[in-house]
Amino acid sequence: MSLVVIGTVAFDAIETPFGKTDKIVGGAATYAGLAASYFYDKTKIVAVVGDDFPKEEIEDFHNHRIDTEGLQIKQGEKSFFWSGKYHNDMNSRDTLVTELNVLADFDPIIPENYQDCEFLMLGNLTPQVQQTVIKRLKNRPKLIVMDTMNFWMDIALDDLLETLKMVDVLTINDAEARQLSGEHSLVKAANKILTMGPKYLIIKKGEHGALLFGEGQIFSAPALPLADVFDPTGAGDSFAGGFIGYLAQVGTVNFNNMKNAIIFGSALASFCVEKFGTERLKNLSAEEINNRVQQFVNLAQFTIAG
Amino acid sequence: MSLVVIGTVAFDAIETPFGKTDKIVGGAATYAGLAASYFYDKTKIVAVVGDDFPKEEIEDFHNHRIDTEGLQIKQGEKSFFWSGKYHNDMNSRDTLVTELNVLADFDPIIPENYQDCEFLMLGNLTPQVQQTVIKRLKNRPKLIVMDTMNFWMDIALDDLLETLKMVDVLTINDAEARQLSGEHSLVKAANKILTMGPKYLIIKKGEHGALLFGEGQIFSAPALPLADVFDPTGAGDSFAGGFIGYLAQVGTVNFNNMKNAIIFGSALASFCVEKFGTERLKNLSAEEINNRVQQFVNLAQFTIAG
Repeated sequence: MSLVVIGTVAFDAIETPFGKTDKIVGGAATYAGLAASYFYDKTKIVAVVGDDFPKEEIEDFHNHRIDTEGLQIKQGEKSFFWSGKYHNDMNSRDTLVTELNVLADFDPIIPENYQDCEFLMLGNLTPQVQQTVIKRLKNRPKLIVMDTMNFWMDIALDDLLETLKMVDVLTINDAEARQLSGEHSLVKAANKILTMGPKYLIIKKGEHGALLFGEGQIFSAPALPLADVFDPTGAGDSFAGGFIGYLAQVGTVNFNNMKNAIIFGSALASFCVEKFGTERLKNLSAEEINNRVQQFVNLAQFTIAG
Repeated sequence: MSLVVIGTVAFDAIETPFGKTDKIVGGAATYAGLAASYFYDKTKIVAVVGDDFPKEEIEDFHNHRIDTEGLQIKQGEKSFFWSGKYHNDMNSRDTLVTELNVLADFDPIIPENYQDCEFLMLGNLTPQVQQTVIKRLKNRPKLIVMDTMNFWMDIALDDLLETLKMVDVLTINDAEARQLSGEHSLVKAANKILTMGPKYLIIKKGEHGALLFGEGQIFSAPALPLADVFDPTGAGDSFAGGFIGYLAQVGTVNFNNMKNAIIFGSALASFCVEKFGTERLKNLSAEEINNRVQQFVNLAQFTIAG
């Protein structure tokens, strides 16, 4: 039994109204793996880096009991690098630099000891690579969660639609749900997307929380109102990692457990944005997480006498 | 003991992607009064119309047990008229026509039998008129809820700030909260606005629900995800009317009751947008309202084992 996370492990350089960083470690698999590790101790990552990637960062994965056998290190090559600048509203950003480097011909390797994968998190990558991972697993995992973005809808829609048929849960934001479905109403968008393959759809709305659609039900999760969002990078990946990590811990996949998984994922995302990069996500205590989840309970719960 | 609602009673002509109407009855006091009437049977309105206002519509208020003694009918004058056209996203609209007519010199009259007012809803009007109503009540109501809009922030900010000092609850949308406070973060905006007078602030976020701030707590209420929003006109007023009507019914004002009041208000708003104008709001059963509230419970509730 294990949780396998595929995605980027990379360098980011980030500028927000609060400051800017040099190259720091980021990537979807980094954030999602770290977030999942707080809930499930058999988390394994599949990714690729160059020989410029710091050994200490790989040790940090091990400190979080994350298996890195599936993390390829390409000698003589450089890690994926992304640089971006957030606008004042923190909801939009400009990409300044994208250097694919090792990602250009990423051929994911699934080590033999990853074949016990029961929970698979497909972080944002080309739909083709996401699909390859599914095909290279001998047994179909119990739950496959797929994250993607508008970029792949623009340039690889057919591959995306093909991969969508193979997954259980899709996580996208509201603009992407509208783009993928061609529907403005999120209810109509969800109904359409749920005919494309996934049995569950999570629509991430940033500061407005998230919606879960599936089993003919809808769950609306709040976001924690924050005085300051320091750096939104990785929030969606932390959410996804917390979500699937919690489900892997619980073991049973159903709508009720998914509701809680969304709350735990949202809690991890709310930590992520408090500092630059993975800084906050690397040093969380169980008590901090439980207190944060309790804040979500207080925020959302009400009791109406029947 | 009574609930007094002040606001416009007027004509609207509305165009949405689903169709358009001729002059139909609208106005903040109309929507808020109707919504409140489902929870509290001593609802009384203060407003002004011209002699063009249909007698049947006034009878309709009476059918909802709404007292109209404070509704002035100006002979030889015309009712306030607003015409607007909603864009495809239904979140923005253009005002096509605004004819103030009787509203231009509205001097609110508080009948003697309104002096038992315990709950006062100040619907969107000039802050000066809102303030006059407070001053003309001999006893300060137990709860004063004030709605306003960006227009008054633009042209009558000093009056608005003066009136704000006299109320308990302010309801505005997220853009207005940012404008009034000069803060982008809604948490910071709320903290600032709560120093301006109101003890509670409700930030309405349309399809993203609402936030309640007060007593050092935050409550996040979901909006019901809807496949179609037929006509958003009056949704905010229906929300406010349902909110204060529920509180008047319960009688005790505290954070927990306000959370429920927001759910009931949101339920009324969700009905309002299903048809043009007040059509849906005029014909609701207790069972429909209870079922709708149960939908909100199902939508928002989750159970995390302690």
